Amino acid sequence: MAPIVDVHTHVYPPSYIEVLRSRAATKTIPYVTSFPEDPDNHRLIILPGEDDSSTPSTARGRPVGPVYWDIKEKIKFMDRHEIQISVISLANPWLDFIDTSIAASEAVRINDEINSLCEQYPGRLYAFGALPLSAKPSEVVAEVKRLNTLSCMRGIILGTSGLGSGLDDPALDAIYAALEETSSMIFLHPHYGLPSEVYGPRKNEYGHVLPLALGFPLETTIAVTRMYLSGVFDRFPKLQVLLAHSGGTLPFLAGRIESCIEHDAHFIHTVKEGGRKSIWETLKQNIWLDAVIYSEVGLKSAIAASGAERMMFGTDHPFFPPLEGEDEAWLSVKTNYAAIAKAFERDQATADGVLGNNAIKALRLQ
Amino acid sequence: MAPIVDVHTHVYPPSYIEVLRSRAATKTIPYVTSFPEDPDNHRLIILPGEDDSSTPSTARGRPVGPVYWDIKEKIKFMDRHEIQISVISLANPWLDFIDTSIAASEAVRINDEINSLCEQYPGRLYAFGALPLSAKPSEVVAEVKRLNTLSCMRGIILGTSGLGSGLDDPALDAIYAALEETSSMIFLHPHYGLPSEVYGPRKNEYGHVLPLALGFPLETTIAVTRMYLSGVFDRFPKLQVLLAHSGGTLPFLAGRIESCIEHDAHFIHTVKEGGRKSIWETLKQNIWLDAVIYSEVGLKSAIAASGAERMMFGTDHPFFPPLEGEDEAWLSVKTNYAAIAKAFERDQATADGVLGNNAIKALRLQ
Repeated sequence: MAPIVDVHTHVYPPSYIEVLRSRAATKTIPYVTSFPEDPDNHRLIILPGEDDSSTPSTARGRPVGPVYWDIKEKIKFMDRHEIQISVISLANPWLDFIDTSIAASEAVRINDEINSLCEQYPGRLYAFGALPLSAKPSEVVAEVKRLNTLSCMRGIILGTSGLGSGLDDPALDAIYAALEETSSMIFLHPHYGLPSEVYGPRKNEYGHVLPLALGFPLETTIAVTRMYLSGVFDRFPKLQVLLAHSGGTLPFLAGRIESCIEHDAHFIHTVKEGGRKSIWETLKQNIWLDAVIYSEVGLKSAIAASGAERMMFGTDHPFFPPLEGEDEAWLSVKTNYAAIAKAFERDQATADGVLGNNAIKALRLQ
Repeated sequence: MAPIVDVHTHVYPPSYIEVLRSRAATKTIPYVTSFPEDPDNHRLIILPGEDDSSTPSTARGRPVGPVYWDIKEKIKFMDRHEIQISVISLANPWLDFIDTSIAASEAVRINDEINSLCEQYPGRLYAFGALPLSAKPSEVVAEVKRLNTLSCMRGIILGTSGLGSGLDDPALDAIYAALEETSSMIFLHPHYGLPSEVYGPRKNEYGHVLPLALGFPLETTIAVTRMYLSGVFDRFPKLQVLLAHSGGTLPFLAGRIESCIEHDAHFIHTVKEGGRKSIWETLKQNIWLDAVIYSEVGLKSAIAASGAERMMFGTDHPFFPPLEGEDEAWLSVKTNYAAIAKAFERDQATADGVLGNNAIKALRLQ
């Protein structure tokens, strides 16, 4: 059996948790706190409105414990689910909120800590670094280059905000150039979701389902579509982007994106000239997709869009723990394993690629 | 060859265009107007910001001409594309914006006009009616029942706003009950999109691509997911909803929606009790999807989610005309025909179902 590699698995290392705890006094999101009715447990408030006192405390933020910061828990989770290698990444919202003056030094401190955690388990842990996006662009570029010299770093994790106005910001070009030059994979991950009014006045009746199930994937889709429309993949044709949650909704909507471009007066010259790099070409040349989509339907659609050789298994650990019985195999992981097994029941080589071999090759693991 | 039926094809009948023209003086969206640099052509302003004078006039709104209101143009389009039957519907934003005091009477006037247009072409035209949602719920129910007595009406077209706060509003129950009782298909169609800030500061550089390609499908997905989470399909198990644009993104995200429910403390009792109607069961029992997705990838995903027997061909006419050469076969239509041909190249019976037979059966045509 081929090794299983998890490319979508997060940590909040101790240094980062300390930063989050320090923000509880002013209730500045993101922060870690506890509620009066449940004082012994800490909860992470990560999205606006999660600390609304009209919400039941079980729906306010999410519980945080050692599984978030103790690397032994990560290894235990990997062993329980037969995962040989994990490529860990700082969870959202990364360093996006850090004060400009200390962002570059905090990035060095936290990335070095993550790299050290990986070095404790040689061959089992690698990482995507986090960028100090609130620092000067030249400092971000310097961190990209520095990360490339660390033993276990294999790319970077990136939210959708960029320098504050999205990933189609031309001011990111120097950073994209550095990422392309160092062959660093970008793991593009959502955090900000959509403005909460889109979920309507009854949204709190549905727990976190609407922002997590719909807002997150759409945020990723909008971000990568803006990159595409702004020509990032024309200017940086070797840039490689791993999209969280099987691309958000990009595989399903790629046809509609192409059709909207072909029918928009704004793009008439580009369309008529020919030679335009289509979204389908971009999917096959620049995009990688994780297999965190929880269904055979989604998985097959993702593979049809970008190719099975560009898909890599992931768990989203430590998020989506079972509601009860944390010591058993996690339902969220079993669901994704089952989707892969079903989608490739007659093609073990492709299944092995998705489960681990694609990641080993693409991220130079082992 | 089986007949081809178009279930997603819009009209703005003359009475409706007059309403839109009357709103130009106050620039109250939606309205029909012309711009000083292009005084002979009328343009429809349908989305907020489309009349922003900093936008080039070719990107402001969209051109409107006889293809929007002259039913002969619809028949010409059908003949050109070998479509035998069209189930026409008022285009967005329907009657959502009509003053409360006249909404019920305007609905009668406009629906009667649409039914008369259909009667001019027996066996070739049917329609989905529009509801006076700004009127009293009892008036809406009365119009549902009245529509069911008209010769060519086969259901209703519905936006995502409902009575103003979405389709998960319990105040809609009387209307859902009437729709279920009369076996009226709901054609759920987007209009409002997403708040424009989600597209970032460079959105105008991309024409209408982001709101049309991403905002529209996500609006539909949010609306139907809210219906599902609020229990509409438990309370009205026979309700039938045709989702525009192959479900927005529902087929791709169904697994993630299920997973988010299974992992949300808010739903723990429902999940543990068992017997919960899953989103997959809802897709196969209550949802129909049009084939307006412009790719084989999307089409196969949609079919895998709801079943090929619940998919029906559509064009979105008169939207997405070719940028040049309107008299030829339309690219948008050819793209959807090609996706169907490719997806079912070895299964003509299923292709015939999608192209027309499913609609004939489900909507009692001919």
